[in-house]
Amino acid sequence: MMAMVFYLAKGSSMSLSKLPYKGTRDFFPTEMRKRDFIFNRMKKIAELHGYEAYDGPMVEEVELYLAKSGEELINEQIYSFIDRGDRKVAIRPEMTPTLARMVAQVHREFPKPLRWYAIPNLMRYEKPQKGRLREHWQFNCDIFGAPEALGEIEILQVASGLLKSFGATEEHFEILLNDRRLVDAFFKQTLNFDSERSHKLYKVLDKAKKVSNEALGKMLDELIPESVKKNQFVHYLNLKTFSDVDNFLTMYGLKDAAAGFVSFYKKLSSTGLSKIVVYDPTIVRGLDYYTGVVFEIFDKSPENRRAICGGGAYGNLLQIFNEPAMGGVGFGLGDVTLTDFLETHKLLPEFKAQDCDVLISYLEDSLEPQAFELAHKLRELNIKTELHLGEAKPKKVFQYAEKKGHKSVTIIGSEEVKNGSFEFKRLRDQEKAVISLNQLSELKEFLELTHG
Amino acid sequence: MMAMVFYLAKGSSMSLSKLPYKGTRDFFPTEMRKRDFIFNRMKKIAELHGYEAYDGPMVEEVELYLAKSGEELINEQIYSFIDRGDRKVAIRPEMTPTLARMVAQVHREFPKPLRWYAIPNLMRYEKPQKGRLREHWQFNCDIFGAPEALGEIEILQVASGLLKSFGATEEHFEILLNDRRLVDAFFKQTLNFDSERSHKLYKVLDKAKKVSNEALGKMLDELIPESVKKNQFVHYLNLKTFSDVDNFLTMYGLKDAAAGFVSFYKKLSSTGLSKIVVYDPTIVRGLDYYTGVVFEIFDKSPENRRAICGGGAYGNLLQIFNEPAMGGVGFGLGDVTLTDFLETHKLLPEFKAQDCDVLISYLEDSLEPQAFELAHKLRELNIKTELHLGEAKPKKVFQYAEKKGHKSVTIIGSEEVKNGSFEFKRLRDQEKAVISLNQLSELKEFLELTHG
Repeated sequence: MMAMVFYLAKGSSMSLSKLPYKGTRDFFPTEMRKRDFIFNRMKKIAELHGYEAYDGPMVEEVELYLAKSGEELINEQIYSFIDRGDRKVAIRPEMTPTLARMVAQVHREFPKPLRWYAIPNLMRYEKPQKGRLREHWQFNCDIFGAPEALGEIEILQVASGLLKSFGATEEHFEILLNDRRLVDAFFKQTLNFDSERSHKLYKVLDKAKKVSNEALGKMLDELIPESVKKNQFVHYLNLKTFSDVDNFLTMYGLKDAAAGFVSFYKKLSSTGLSKIVVYDPTIVRGLDYYTGVVFEIFDKSPENRRAICGGGAYGNLLQIFNEPAMGGVGFGLGDVTLTDFLETHKLLPEFKAQDCDVLISYLEDSLEPQAFELAHKLRELNIKTELHLGEAKPKKVFQYAEKKGHKSVTIIGSEEVKNGSFEFKRLRDQEKAVISLNQLSELKEFLELTHG
Repeated sequence: MMAMVFYLAKGSSMSLSKLPYKGTRDFFPTEMRKRDFIFNRMKKIAELHGYEAYDGPMVEEVELYLAKSGEELINEQIYSFIDRGDRKVAIRPEMTPTLARMVAQVHREFPKPLRWYAIPNLMRYEKPQKGRLREHWQFNCDIFGAPEALGEIEILQVASGLLKSFGATEEHFEILLNDRRLVDAFFKQTLNFDSERSHKLYKVLDKAKKVSNEALGKMLDELIPESVKKNQFVHYLNLKTFSDVDNFLTMYGLKDAAAGFVSFYKKLSSTGLSKIVVYDPTIVRGLDYYTGVVFEIFDKSPENRRAICGGGAYGNLLQIFNEPAMGGVGFGLGDVTLTDFLETHKLLPEFKAQDCDVLISYLEDSLEPQAFELAHKLRELNIKTELHLGEAKPKKVFQYAEKKGHKSVTIIGSEEVKNGSFEFKRLRDQEKAVISLNQLSELKEFLELTHG
């Protein structure tokens, strides 16, 4: 096989592409620092709310997605293939099916509610464009078995809390929200639609924001030829506030059927969320598995007017596994759309410098063992230490340290080794400190290190 | 689609498996705490040595693996498939090809050496067994462009430093090490083998530890019928120390050809590594892309006698991308074998309790808004707060808090809301503290919190 490597290296026409697979990303150290910064905020906000981390495999058997999701997703967006054991498997396109499978396995062992979060990498066969890539990471938070309406409120707090933790406010984003119980009841009881017609109308609603008014009107003319029903539907489409919704439910006698939603928006008003949550009749979250509250978080900037996050309540996922029903509420928030949002509103710091405390260099090769020893001792004290390998001139060492963003530099000569003490230069202000081998923890104070 | 969910839920014969795909794992919160503990150690040891995090996509075009790896891997162990755009892609079975591709893209922009690390999830089509799963996570550290022998020493320090950070010592593990320059020179110059015969002999070496002495003898009889050469090869196979190696290289006149290795083991003796590094003539790292030092870290326990980690120096990977040669040294260390090692030697703590600071409960639904508000204020102070949703009896709340491992509990009644102060009970010792809404940070001292 080595032969082949050499062959390729020699035959220039055979050289390989350096670029990542279409629609995926390479995370070089600067990008990775940004990603870690964002992921750490996700972990922090989840844990501040009592959520515990979980993870699952990056592939699942395809049946799992067939059982709970839209056919559209299976046919067009999923990365699926047959394995060598004739199993049909797929790279996970979303986390909720895996989550439901895992909760179905163990829910009896845990006190309720379960609060779980994850940040998996997911793949969908998308046409790459702004905000959409084939591989992304998605922050998922879910609560299972919470009392009615309260799980929904908490989940909205976690999702909006994440954005607020970056400094975003109601000027930057809003939560557009609806409820499948309301829509179901309205379609069935008021419009008197059977499930097939309801299904089609759901599809229209899901597209309502993406098409022109003319196109929308045409779709509605086809699907609702009856003028009374069409007027009722237009009434529905014009609902703008929870007070509008309350009147609408009363007028059509739907309050009982949508009681869970009524309870939700009444509780909502006593939380800090009511400023950022807006009722929106077109939010239905596609043909997905939701059964109650559904929501999307939208960027309010006209330059980046898109959903950053989607979620809602689902009542029936555990039943797919022959487990008793237990309601869940959750959301997924992708790193690509989140980063677009944060960059649109200039809510991210810069991530230029590596976080490294000290660079050690030495004047002669004979001092290498001492340099390795000093590095070892500093690392034992949790001091991030880079050893500049090989003999080097001090001037070059300092240039390198500046470029890499080191906090300090020490250069070992034979004098230093003889005295057992080293001069550390702090690059921020060029201050110096001489510290002996037995007192190396003084370097932490000198550099004002908070880690370790 | 909802109809399908209901159908599946009702038809019990259709229920889905709750288990993960063969050879993969579900990480429930307890397993995830263990994983995070291990991954955090990996990140810490890498960053203490000045390594920067990177990551790449979970799929790559198959050509990348064909160009640098053994055919065995491509044919039998890789998860590959054709995408909808007729690209042949594979789920990453290892990280080094991605790393080389990324370094080839950007190496000109960075001062040398580059020190990068990652903890990607990888998939190989394995027969699942102890220490081998189809999906695992692998700690990868690599250094590019380091002076001769010094990158190798640093990489060995990082790998062994990780194990030491869990409390492992030379009683628990050893680093078995060899050098491809030595083997290549011996095969070519001493045995006078052409590349085809060398290739076969490499395969024999790679299997030497896994087969019986008889089987090994038989393979050697076939491949080396010449008795002089066979004696030379047996001499090689009996090398046990670097001093043996030094004599061997002198005797056969191979010192110049293996000069890089000589320089390496001379430096080695002045580092703390010489206690744990053992020369082993059978270590060659398969038919892989290594060109210099190669090593494996072995568990010394007879109950878990296996490799935890493999790595080495490679000189030609960048050339596949038509870039000038730049030497790299690195290792991969899998989470499955590492966990087996740590558990064999009882080097892992228990991971039972969730880390949560306070559980808030309330006596009546009317106090919900105040409970949400208190939770919000505590979280703003970086206090990990779970809100017990819904009315609940104090006795049940305390039972739940004990079970979940909370540090403290507060129960809100109308008195507390009127006074604007709350009684927090510390579960460890049942001590109580009354803290007012304006002084909530006092709770941090009461609970001796170090985070935030």
